[in-house]
Amino acid sequence: MTGSEEAALRRLSLNTATVKNADLPTALRVAARAGFGAVGLWRDRVAEVGLPAAVELVGETGLPVSSLCRGGFLTGADAEDEALRDNTAAIAEAQALGTRELVMVVGGLTLPDRDLVAARRRVAERLASLVPIAREHGVRLVLEALHPMYCADRAVISTLEQALDLAAPYEPETVGVVVDTFHQWWDPDLERQIERAGSEHRLAGYQICDWNLPIAQDALLSRGLMGDGYIDFATITTWMERAGYDGPIEVEIFNADIWAADPQSVAEAVRDRYLELVAPYLGRPSTSQP
Amino acid sequence: MTGSEEAALRRLSLNTATVKNADLPTALRVAARAGFGAVGLWRDRVAEVGLPAAVELVGETGLPVSSLCRGGFLTGADAEDEALRDNTAAIAEAQALGTRELVMVVGGLTLPDRDLVAARRRVAERLASLVPIAREHGVRLVLEALHPMYCADRAVISTLEQALDLAAPYEPETVGVVVDTFHQWWDPDLERQIERAGSEHRLAGYQICDWNLPIAQDALLSRGLMGDGYIDFATITTWMERAGYDGPIEVEIFNADIWAADPQSVAEAVRDRYLELVAPYLGRPSTSQP
Repeated sequence: MTGSEEAALRRLSLNTATVKNADLPTALRVAARAGFGAVGLWRDRVAEVGLPAAVELVGETGLPVSSLCRGGFLTGADAEDEALRDNTAAIAEAQALGTRELVMVVGGLTLPDRDLVAARRRVAERLASLVPIAREHGVRLVLEALHPMYCADRAVISTLEQALDLAAPYEPETVGVVVDTFHQWWDPDLERQIERAGSEHRLAGYQICDWNLPIAQDALLSRGLMGDGYIDFATITTWMERAGYDGPIEVEIFNADIWAADPQSVAEAVRDRYLELVAPYLGRPSTSQP
Repeated sequence: MTGSEEAALRRLSLNTATVKNADLPTALRVAARAGFGAVGLWRDRVAEVGLPAAVELVGETGLPVSSLCRGGFLTGADAEDEALRDNTAAIAEAQALGTRELVMVVGGLTLPDRDLVAARRRVAERLASLVPIAREHGVRLVLEALHPMYCADRAVISTLEQALDLAAPYEPETVGVVVDTFHQWWDPDLERQIERAGSEHRLAGYQICDWNLPIAQDALLSRGLMGDGYIDFATITTWMERAGYDGPIEVEIFNADIWAADPQSVAEAVRDRYLELVAPYLGRPSTSQP
């Protein structure tokens, strides 16, 4: 392994959603064995063992936590208290787990309410309530724009530009954005918005996986291993580097076939594809700058 | 039926894709009987009977053709000649059928080519070749932005803004855009881009159908009858009216259940939902203007 590969691996993070059927100790172990430099945790994995045990397990493995997934779901018309309570708990969990980054999926519409403009307004209003709590805990609310095919039921924020506009009133230490290749690869404005996110100091994460076809029957499970689909990782990674992003690169794949496979093999396949398709474009922003 | 309902029906167009299993004579008959004011034709329906017979059938029914679907597929790296030939044929068919509007679906990526930026550039280049041919035939190339979930395999143009930027170098009589609720309802910039399209005189069509969940196993078939899904037709229709659009409103639904139903009942259900959910927002732009 070359020095630059070793440096690239230190940035590689295994999101536990990629090895959905592994419990937390197994997920941590396969990540460490495959040479990952960090892990991204979903709250369900943490809840299974309980927060104190999760903190201890993570501490024993020695891998930093790149992010906690996920807070959010701020759109429900009559659910403000519940949203506030759940997100406050998520903020406290993130702090306990030693990560600054709490990924926020903002929520969709609830029929018969079809007022997308009002749902987006509620997101902005409830974000305002959460910001002081996050600030107090030293946690950043990381807004994730989801692919427009999830606009109805998952996230009324579909573009990086929207996420950045929503973050704009707050200091970048408390509200950031994550770039996720699956959700944003199609966006004609992506290069410009990544550059903007960098200059506004809001790049709080880079999540990677591929866009596979056909779309899976459960559309949430359409994410693929890098190289299996249509995404140009060289280009998007180069944009991230130019924007000054030097943080963790988290691999988050929802995919029934990958979930059915042996977690150690999955971690190794993820690592190998990352070294082939992403790592070569890291750490050389100066050569690609205009 | 009120006078305003009659006026609204004159704008209503049945796209033959909505009654996929009906042949052209049947599709024309059910549209006329249900009170539609126009029809939108797919080229497959025209090809089945041959162009001269299609022209005659349309003439006998007396319904104007609101658009011909579709030209396009301009992205293939080595397929310039083929694309030019096929689109030239489509332009001539549109002219023969008496419609100015040829809907263009621009095409996606062909693996292993993942260069989205280059594919979009090819669309612009090939559009430039087609413009003089369209102009000569008095036909307008109507760029259709498709939902981002079709970016990989159907259309590298995902937003109305992209379509308008692509159209910008040409006169609005020769290159226009269509607003399709299914493809564009999620776009946070939609109101502004519809307004822009109106002020640039490029609004060449308004296609409606709903966004249903779950996404169908064949993602192309996820389109639903207005009212069955998440789209706020009052708001988007009001934006179209404010932008000065007063042309046909075409209902284009790809949906296996709807295709399996009796075409006459489908046409009537479409008409009734249109009268309920869309027609009330037509013809009164002055009341909604700022």
